[in-house]
Amino acid sequence: MRSRSGGRTITVGIIGATGYAGGELVRLLLNHPNVKLAGLYGRNRDHQPIAASHPHLSGSGLVIDQAIPEADAVFTALPHGIAAGMAADIVARGSALFDIGPDFRLHDPADYPRWYKFEHPSPELLAQAVYGLPELHRDQMRAAVDGPNTIIGLPGCYPTATILTLAPLARAGLIADLVVDAKSGASGAGREPRADLLFSEVNESVKAYAMFSHRHTAEMEQELQQQGERGPLASREANPGVAMVDFLPHLIPMTRGILTSCHVRPTRPVTQDELDTLYAEAYRDEPFVQFVADPPSTKQVLGSNMCRVWCRVDPRTGRVLAIGVIDNLIKGAAGQAVQALNVVFGLPETTGLEGYPIAP
Amino acid sequence: MRSRSGGRTITVGIIGATGYAGGELVRLLLNHPNVKLAGLYGRNRDHQPIAASHPHLSGSGLVIDQAIPEADAVFTALPHGIAAGMAADIVARGSALFDIGPDFRLHDPADYPRWYKFEHPSPELLAQAVYGLPELHRDQMRAAVDGPNTIIGLPGCYPTATILTLAPLARAGLIADLVVDAKSGASGAGREPRADLLFSEVNESVKAYAMFSHRHTAEMEQELQQQGERGPLASREANPGVAMVDFLPHLIPMTRGILTSCHVRPTRPVTQDELDTLYAEAYRDEPFVQFVADPPSTKQVLGSNMCRVWCRVDPRTGRVLAIGVIDNLIKGAAGQAVQALNVVFGLPETTGLEGYPIAP
Amino acid sequence: MRSRSGGRTITVGIIGATGYAGGELVRLLLNHPNVKLAGLYGRNRDHQPIAASHPHLSGSGLVIDQAIPEADAVFTALPHGIAAGMAADIVARGSALFDIGPDFRLHDPADYPRWYKFEHPSPELLAQAVYGLPELHRDQMRAAVDGPNTIIGLPGCYPTATILTLAPLARAGLIADLVVDAKSGASGAGREPRADLLFSEVNESVKAYAMFSHRHTAEMEQELQQQGERGPLASREANPGVAMVDFLPHLIPMTRGILTSCHVRPTRPVTQDELDTLYAEAYRDEPFVQFVADPPSTKQVLGSNMCRVWCRVDPRTGRVLAIGVIDNLIKGAAGQAVQALNVVFGLPETTGLEGYPIAP
Amino acid sequence: MRSRSGGRTITVGIIGATGYAGGELVRLLLNHPNVKLAGLYGRNRDHQPIAASHPHLSGSGLVIDQAIPEADAVFTALPHGIAAGMAADIVARGSALFDIGPDFRLHDPADYPRWYKFEHPSPELLAQAVYGLPELHRDQMRAAVDGPNTIIGLPGCYPTATILTLAPLARAGLIADLVVDAKSGASGAGREPRADLLFSEVNESVKAYAMFSHRHTAEMEQELQQQGERGPLASREANPGVAMVDFLPHLIPMTRGILTSCHVRPTRPVTQDELDTLYAEAYRDEPFVQFVADPPSTKQVLGSNMCRVWCRVDPRTGRVLAIGVIDNLIKGAAGQAVQALNVVFGLPETTGLEGYPIAP
Repeated sequence: MRSRSGGRTITVGIIGATGYAGGELVRLLLNHPNVKLAGLYGRNRDHQPIAASHPHLSGSGLVIDQAIPEADAVFTALPHGIAAGMAADIVARGSALFDIGPDFRLHDPADYPRWYKFEHPSPELLAQAVYGLPELHRDQMRAAVDGPNTIIGLPGCYPTATILTLAPLARAGLIADLVVDAKSGASGAGREPRADLLFSEVNESVKAYAMFSHRHTAEMEQELQQQGERGPLASREANPGVAMVDFLPHLIPMTRGILTSCHVRPTRPVTQDELDTLYAEAYRDEPFVQFVADPPSTKQVLGSNMCRVWCRVDPRTGRVLAIGVIDNLIKGAAGQAVQALNVVFGLPETTGLEGYPIAP
Repeated sequence: MRSRSGGRTITVGIIGATGYAGGELVRLLLNHPNVKLAGLYGRNRDHQPIAASHPHLSGSGLVIDQAIPEADAVFTALPHGIAAGMAADIVARGSALFDIGPDFRLHDPADYPRWYKFEHPSPELLAQAVYGLPELHRDQMRAAVDGPNTIIGLPGCYPTATILTLAPLARAGLIADLVVDAKSGASGAGREPRADLLFSEVNESVKAYAMFSHRHTAEMEQELQQQGERGPLASREANPGVAMVDFLPHLIPMTRGILTSCHVRPTRPVTQDELDTLYAEAYRDEPFVQFVADPPSTKQVLGSNMCRVWCRVDPRTGRVLAIGVIDNLIKGAAGQAVQALNVVFGLPETTGLEGYPIAP
Repeated sequence: MRSRSGGRTITVGIIGATGYAGGELVRLLLNHPNVKLAGLYGRNRDHQPIAASHPHLSGSGLVIDQAIPEADAVFTALPHGIAAGMAADIVARGSALFDIGPDFRLHDPADYPRWYKFEHPSPELLAQAVYGLPELHRDQMRAAVDGPNTIIGLPGCYPTATILTLAPLARAGLIADLVVDAKSGASGAGREPRADLLFSEVNESVKAYAMFSHRHTAEMEQELQQQGERGPLASREANPGVAMVDFLPHLIPMTRGILTSCHVRPTRPVTQDELDTLYAEAYRDEPFVQFVADPPSTKQVLGSNMCRVWCRVDPRTGRVLAIGVIDNLIKGAAGQAVQALNVVFGLPETTGLEGYPIAP
Repeated sequence: MRSRSGGRTITVGIIGATGYAGGELVRLLLNHPNVKLAGLYGRNRDHQPIAASHPHLSGSGLVIDQAIPEADAVFTALPHGIAAGMAADIVARGSALFDIGPDFRLHDPADYPRWYKFEHPSPELLAQAVYGLPELHRDQMRAAVDGPNTIIGLPGCYPTATILTLAPLARAGLIADLVVDAKSGASGAGREPRADLLFSEVNESVKAYAMFSHRHTAEMEQELQQQGERGPLASREANPGVAMVDFLPHLIPMTRGILTSCHVRPTRPVTQDELDTLYAEAYRDEPFVQFVADPPSTKQVLGSNMCRVWCRVDPRTGRVLAIGVIDNLIKGAAGQAVQALNVVFGLPETTGLEGYPIAP
């Protein structure tokens, strides 16, 4: 699983390196053989060493810069609405923009006021953005370098796990009714001090949150609907279950990992063989998606860019259950960002992401 | 360390006190003002102090006895199939039998080979057993003392949480389609050494398990179907979603607690007012079920016999989401057993169970 | 949900009920048969239901009051320096004051600027205060009701565990050199939002903190020195190890519990028999201290007011190791406060604290 | 932190790959640019895929072999006493032996019956073995390839952390009295099913264990004594505190990581400047030991081969506190083994170990 690419060096800047996703991005890029970190930027943190935010990275000697970095690629890991405002400046300097936040994920500008409560300030740039899930949009991502601007809206953590888990079913028009019941570790909630995220509150407890209103719902619906349209066998109407996804996230007492349990009432009876074929074909050549025979745990992908997907028909009820797991900070954020960089810049897709998961 | 209120004393024996549910039962009964622990019994553990199994109870000075205790009430907390074999002996001595295991939960004898892979050895006793969920069967439980034998099949942990969460909807005939996605702490898996339950395996991980085959599914279906039949507005057909429940349990990294997320497609459009009324009426007088306005966490009931239930209609999709939480070892096992004892023996139902949850 | 035994009723007010210790105090007092909660008070929280801070207590229906409660006893659970300023008002109304904070623990006023960085505003009240560890000062506490004012400075969590673990050795003049290496769950750090207490930071990590400067050091030294002076065999000089305690606390990834490992170089060779006798005699009649033969874990006392103590001489090195465990929020805070109330008001000392620990 | 070494390939076999340390070793070697995995061996596991033991490594396609692998280097990760019996066979084939277990750590054969309760079967091989802590014995390890047999006894997890934390003090003859109070995650206890290592037992609890008898004590004493003898300023007598180390390990509720708190009474007054100089000089050129200014947490080294060390004199008491952290499965086991391989085979020492720690 190890590649060595001699050759070109890509300069990279990061805006917003002090959060959890930003820290993971720095860590991964420090080990990327073709990347030179050109600069880190965070408002009001000039000259602060990275170790002030990320003690584990103190050995890197990195320091937050005064200015937005000039670089071939700029990654933004910022609260929603901020990257959208900076994007024009970034792409004007010729940098490719990889937004880890949500500002370039949704194609319909109206989705921003609806789900995120802000008007998108650059709808024209939004129109140029590609949804950066390589397993679905690899060709578009590669083509992005030829457009007027290169803007990649990187998927959210829940959508990454859920879309990869359901895409083969959606493409085949098999989703009549859909419940997505997901479980996430606390790092997905970020790093700002909040009383409800204190150890003593999260530990030995589980709760659902963001009922009926989690913003990632919009992404899931956008992408799953589109898969239905693309599928050779199906139209959007064939997947009524993805028109409005019943998505419920839960906070569980762990730091990393997302497991998404997708309960599907199929549009017609299906066999296990049919499911096996659909998934095997979908993911046979994907370096970061494994279709597995045993139900996966999040620990099986911890610390890696891997997504494991499992799918079974219930012989008793005829319903279909599909389960996916990722490390929310890697395949759900920083690792996916590196994967996207590799795709866009024509590097082997696994470069810098070769590590196996770490267990236990 | 026990205080006594006035009134009668019930002698109680416990068979299988060395597991987690058994330990909690001992703890609760030691503080029960009307109970005298007449004896503990565990095979091959004669004369072993309870502290060998439960160091936290060393102060009680209790010791495992050589023989099955003679007592007004006998609790069994045993692997499936064992209590069924002992039941005839126990009731023959005049003891009321409260089985914390599954041997007297399912009314149809055919469900035992189907779900538990054993033939029930005493179908005639099974026919006399009452499903011991007081919130649903309080009158039957009280009447059990007048029958030939008093046998209470105490509900499983997942069914307790799930049935209480869904009963008002089932009774109203509102469940067209149902997904029950539940999350449990590791104590529910018991205390036998197993590699997959080691701390290092469970910590920082989540997984689904027992796909399509969890034995508690049978209880949920039995009871939810029956609620539908009972409902003033509904027949069994009115709740097609409970005919075969899509139940998926997950193991999450905590010791105690169950949260059950019940995703319901209703049989007809419902309003929040209607739901509020259904639940408020169902649980207004219940000492151990709270219908709450904010989504509950398991920590809110930790260490108590309380069940908290929350129910909302999604204004966007029209689907109904109902969530319930319990402490799996108390309301899901030992506390429920004490509650049942109180009901059957005519004590105030909260006796010995008055403690508030412990937080954080 | 409270049972009543016969006898007198004590009215109790709580100032600062919204933190973790305050919540536990409310919980315990709600179940105390001789206590009537006369009022809760928190600045700027008038009319706020207790459930806003403590969802698990929503069933109590309690509401924060506008004014400091009039009551037989007032408990303060406040940041340091605040109770000291309120004390004169509270005792002027005739209330006995039980301070869960540190404002009345240290006898030497100079210790407040030294360790807590504030000048004590009421040194005359401080002189009247009793250090409220019943196992050491029961008679003084009882006598406090006869003084001009009744002020109990309740011990800190680390000192409670450590002093109880070491008192028999100190009294016997056996401590030549002392290292106290303690481990605490995160609830001891309180409930204010702090980035370093987020679940994602505390989980899967351990660190030492407050090196050389933890404020509880002062209490340990005060009390252990005093034990040495009291001992029949010893003077203060006989325990040089308690003159300046080498105390190091650690934050470990759990919510509740303190384990204190006390490494002692004895002043002279000791035998295990001698140690067994010392501890057995010290704690034979104590309802809340158990001298145990097997090394204890914090789980063995979780949810109870119990302290377990273990002490052994190392046959190889001749050194003595003493280990103590408590639930930091109960014996280390709220439970101890209730125990002190019982002592001061002449109730049986275990009233309202009878529950066994909860496990697992 | 990334090196690329073109060139030679070392064939490696692993005996005992199915435990936690073995799994980490496989993971690290799969990404090592100069290593070819020649074979895995485990008794009675012929043809079993590695995924049966390590689902996270399923992508590697590795399978357990029938026979002990022929290879340039053979790693053994086995219960004590087993590698000692296999060693003669392994080295007879010309393989260098790297034992992750304890069978070649202690130089005095009498220490094996004393601490491990077995007679060492190959004292002549033991005499050839080098204690494989590169920071102390790098030259000896390099020279091992020229001896009759190459046998590296890799250090235990607690000794690695503790020796690195104390070596500068020992070398300077500064340790008059020593308490080593260490905290470990549960992965250090291995993977065999044990009731006391179940999640429900370890979670929300802390306990000390192996009082006065932990086998790693022998290693610490051996190495710290030797450091004292080596030091320019000191003889063994100058460090009376290391003659018999007061070592106490604790199990805390986390999976990975060791923090060792070393409480030292110095042989003479020391200044912080002196300590800073000692440590800075000791570790200036070490790639895997960082002398840090802020007290470290285990999370700061999680997933890496790094050891962080902190040392301070207490201005109040004059005592010295030194704290070290490692990932017990990496620097404490598998990573150290890879580092040793690099040293012995003349590769850059960081090869395959370049990754930064993973946080949070």
